[in-house]
Amino acid sequence: MNIQTPIANTIPTGERPGSRKVYQTGVLYPDIRVPFREVAVHPSAGEPPVTLYDPSGPYTDPTATIDIHKGLERPRDAWVLARGDVEAVPARPVKPEDNGGAAGKHLAPQFQNLRAPLKAKGGAAVTQLEYARRGLITPEMEYVAIRENLRREATAAVLRDGESFGADIPDFITPEFVRDEIARGRAIIPANINHGELEPMAIGRNFLVKINANIGNSAVLSSVEDEVDKMVWAIRWGGDTIMDLSTGRNIHNIREWIIRNCPTPVGTVPIYQALEKVGGVAEDLTWDVFRDTLIEQAEQGVDYFTIHAGVRLSYVPLTAKRVTGIVSRGGSILAKWCLAHHRENFLYTHFEEICEIMRAYDVSFSLGDGLRPGCIADANDAAQFGELQTLGELTQVAWKHDVQVMIEGPGHVPMHLIKENMDRQLKDCDEAPFYTLGPLTTDIAPGYDHITSGIGAAMIGWFGTAMLCYVTPKEHLGLPDKNDVREGIVTYKIAAHAADLAKGHPAAQLRDNALSKARFEFRWEDQFNLGLDPDKAREFHDQTLPQEGAKLAHFCSMCGPHFCSMKITQDVRDYAAQQGLDETAALRQGMAEKSAEFKRQGAEVYRKL
Amino acid sequence: MNIQTPIANTIPTGERPGSRKVYQTGVLYPDIRVPFREVAVHPSAGEPPVTLYDPSGPYTDPTATIDIHKGLERPRDAWVLARGDVEAVPARPVKPEDNGGAAGKHLAPQFQNLRAPLKAKGGAAVTQLEYARRGLITPEMEYVAIRENLRREATAAVLRDGESFGADIPDFITPEFVRDEIARGRAIIPANINHGELEPMAIGRNFLVKINANIGNSAVLSSVEDEVDKMVWAIRWGGDTIMDLSTGRNIHNIREWIIRNCPTPVGTVPIYQALEKVGGVAEDLTWDVFRDTLIEQAEQGVDYFTIHAGVRLSYVPLTAKRVTGIVSRGGSILAKWCLAHHRENFLYTHFEEICEIMRAYDVSFSLGDGLRPGCIADANDAAQFGELQTLGELTQVAWKHDVQVMIEGPGHVPMHLIKENMDRQLKDCDEAPFYTLGPLTTDIAPGYDHITSGIGAAMIGWFGTAMLCYVTPKEHLGLPDKNDVREGIVTYKIAAHAADLAKGHPAAQLRDNALSKARFEFRWEDQFNLGLDPDKAREFHDQTLPQEGAKLAHFCSMCGPHFCSMKITQDVRDYAAQQGLDETAALRQGMAEKSAEFKRQGAEVYRKL
Repeated sequence: MNIQTPIANTIPTGERPGSRKVYQTGVLYPDIRVPFREVAVHPSAGEPPVTLYDPSGPYTDPTATIDIHKGLERPRDAWVLARGDVEAVPARPVKPEDNGGAAGKHLAPQFQNLRAPLKAKGGAAVTQLEYARRGLITPEMEYVAIRENLRREATAAVLRDGESFGADIPDFITPEFVRDEIARGRAIIPANINHGELEPMAIGRNFLVKINANIGNSAVLSSVEDEVDKMVWAIRWGGDTIMDLSTGRNIHNIREWIIRNCPTPVGTVPIYQALEKVGGVAEDLTWDVFRDTLIEQAEQGVDYFTIHAGVRLSYVPLTAKRVTGIVSRGGSILAKWCLAHHRENFLYTHFEEICEIMRAYDVSFSLGDGLRPGCIADANDAAQFGELQTLGELTQVAWKHDVQVMIEGPGHVPMHLIKENMDRQLKDCDEAPFYTLGPLTTDIAPGYDHITSGIGAAMIGWFGTAMLCYVTPKEHLGLPDKNDVREGIVTYKIAAHAADLAKGHPAAQLRDNALSKARFEFRWEDQFNLGLDPDKAREFHDQTLPQEGAKLAHFCSMCGPHFCSMKITQDVRDYAAQQGLDETAALRQGMAEKSAEFKRQGAEVYRKL
Repeated sequence: MNIQTPIANTIPTGERPGSRKVYQTGVLYPDIRVPFREVAVHPSAGEPPVTLYDPSGPYTDPTATIDIHKGLERPRDAWVLARGDVEAVPARPVKPEDNGGAAGKHLAPQFQNLRAPLKAKGGAAVTQLEYARRGLITPEMEYVAIRENLRREATAAVLRDGESFGADIPDFITPEFVRDEIARGRAIIPANINHGELEPMAIGRNFLVKINANIGNSAVLSSVEDEVDKMVWAIRWGGDTIMDLSTGRNIHNIREWIIRNCPTPVGTVPIYQALEKVGGVAEDLTWDVFRDTLIEQAEQGVDYFTIHAGVRLSYVPLTAKRVTGIVSRGGSILAKWCLAHHRENFLYTHFEEICEIMRAYDVSFSLGDGLRPGCIADANDAAQFGELQTLGELTQVAWKHDVQVMIEGPGHVPMHLIKENMDRQLKDCDEAPFYTLGPLTTDIAPGYDHITSGIGAAMIGWFGTAMLCYVTPKEHLGLPDKNDVREGIVTYKIAAHAADLAKGHPAAQLRDNALSKARFEFRWEDQFNLGLDPDKAREFHDQTLPQEGAKLAHFCSMCGPHFCSMKITQDVRDYAAQQGLDETAALRQGMAEKSAEFKRQGAEVYRKL
């Protein structure tokens, strides 16, 4: 494929259906503008608009000018520089191997609007964790606090009922609460100082459950614009972070395009690029190549790194009797390295040096679960839990260096073994945020693994997982296209929201109630717009009843125009009001009379609501 | 629509991909032939074929001749007649109102190959419950026992690990166990004596979790052949029972076509047809019309009736403050009747008479949850649980009359309230099988309610629900087409299987393991064929790697040809074998030597498995 084709601006922009982009400004930091998506409902409802969390960035702001060649605005640069603890440094020169040796027409175009990277002065930690520990509330923290409240302060709307399993979400999030959670290590704000385009977000058990969407080219398919486009598509549908899992050539250049145009945190698995640099031969990996890759990516602004430092040599044989062995790509790369050299994993032995690098840019750890189970039979085994314990030890090391940490989790786990994963992670990793892939609750549905895993994701999110890594319908079968990404994200938004509801998050049920009321009152447009995928809901509705009038009609295609269960309730309400809800008395005081009265109104039984 | 268009035989037939229809014969009843679907794996695997549960009937038997005008063969007639307790009676004449007054070209053609209906002699109970109680193991019971074991006896294959929450599933099901569960009321075999085409199946907590698919025309859309076709489609994908929820005209004739061609139990909601007979005016419903409808449908061979006898007048006002009131169509019909007459629900007051009718044909109760919650906010409220208690009382009444019973459940329930539903149902209804719709775990995803509900279905199935009623992506929006039916069924097969795994059903994990091994060994065709939807899996795979050779390749599109995590495991296994799994000793005894040895093999690191 010739990837020097001029990059067209076909990126999807504009507000989502029925939505308006709104901002709330900061108090501690008045230049903060936290974005939300506001969905107004029909005036007949007599209800205020519903405010939704919005990770889609400027792409859904009709006033923003989008030019992916220039990249997004960088409001966060000012916050970073204002702290006075970073300095611009000469950029590490781009090497041919950064792009897998691609040249000529095979080389993806370089992003042009580059700046000198920032780095901590004098080896200091410039991390949100370090600031939090010393009592500083950063703009990032206030931003996150505002974001998590979904503008409920104005109405004091709190609706909670749930089982939190030890999560402790306050009615309203304050900047100080955010600081405290970060300081405790129970939440992170992945926010590389070189990611000035970032709209900060929090990952932690006491915040809204988040989802990640993986994108990335591979050795089989690739294109620069496709990747930027897929990123924008992913956040448009609700991805809270994206991971660039590119392999093959042009990794460096594609990543630059992605980060410069991405308002959400970007995560990577640096060992993937390091492997490309040594020609795909795992045993040729060295600490120097890996270290150089970390710096390369940290300078570009990657917000979190998956580091498989827990794949210790001694755990590798524990996978031998598994049905599906090691299925994590990073895990198997490192297992292979360990076996080839018969030495301890170099990410483990160099872990403190990795911390030194990451703290200088505030890259967060996503400690990888390289030994996660790849099938139901291998769930919760000694290899998996051995690695988890090591990740817990490494969490303490990272925290010692003021580096933010989250922990990756499985994988394939039957329902009855899911909670043990969460409980062990909380204990072994001292409540560092958990970030899980699914888990898939059965292996028997290739083509539907967004669903097999959405079940597990909802459950583990309820139990306390802070971020859910999406799985698309193409999992195990091929690379996701845009439709798969949409399907995967909506499924994971469902899982995350179901988890928030069950945890009793005070913001969660407001949206369910608004949508349910709209459904009950046949406000079809409101029902569509309040849903996770208004386009699909409208399309489905119109397949049966395409007429515009049907969207105002007091019936739907399930029961048809002649009888609808929703319509009976006004009668019930009238009756209940008459009875003062005391049905016993009502039964005594003259049924015949009531009956006659009800029948007199019979001409308009399908009364307007 | 002119529905007298000649009915073409476009019904999908033939074996499913990679499958072979096989039968196992009975021991107590040698004329029993229990169908299974056998999936052979590639000879390189060295593994036996996998036997799958198969509700698809003769349509997937290449030796069967399918003619929907004649209907299926009726092997079960002989079993029924052999018991000597039934007699042929003159059929209730079909009345114009049975088909909603449809006439001329609007009248669906009558099914021609009719027989005189059977009925119990002299008011006896001819139910599986009555036989079980008096110690008789019927052919239906042996059939079910064989069916549930999935031919594992030959290999003694038992693989179990789970949390059963009090379910008590033996390693192998015996006919006597089935009899005992039926006698206890903990399971049912819905099997109308007039459904000679039936391949019996069990619904109970100590059997495989089943799923139901709803079909049916409505006032908005209708066609005879579409409905038969949709039924065949539904069971082809794995529906264990189907419910005909038709409304509008031609209900009688369409139902006859469906039952005469359906090998699974067929359920209905008789109040729907009764309502049509009184012109759609709920308050005009009478016991006589309803009673006549029960007999009409019982004579046709309907296997279970949803009866909303728990919608008591005194519960109706409890729904007044709900966000979405009453959402069950049957529930709202009866609530309206109760309000109009200010009298107790006539299904409740005539319940014993209903039992008298149903026991004469062995129609099972599906006691309807007319007050199920229609949104998260209304879950587990006084109306819902009040009705559930009444259903428990009615269960005892039905059992007194030897009528089989299952109980319908919600609806919309957030995850943290699901278990309470199951626990209360077990207690209130004395372990009668639970049959739930979802539940949907959030309201915010119209267009994806197969997924919002699949999450809840998996969980409540795990907790003990015996049958899950599917929800399609069109729920709340429109009528499902064939693709929606497929999507809904596969989603619910996932939920049911995930539940079986988590319960520790001894048959469940065999399929996961077979598929996972196929995945691990890059036996792509086996992976497709063992999955719930081989066609979609193959299609997805081929979108990225369409070449036939790729399906044999030892790589997939996720990692590309250069590195694949699956391939490392053979190295790990070799290493572990060398170490005798004692890695500590290994570390001591000369890492350098091992390293050199491994590297010598480096030329073929991607060794054949």
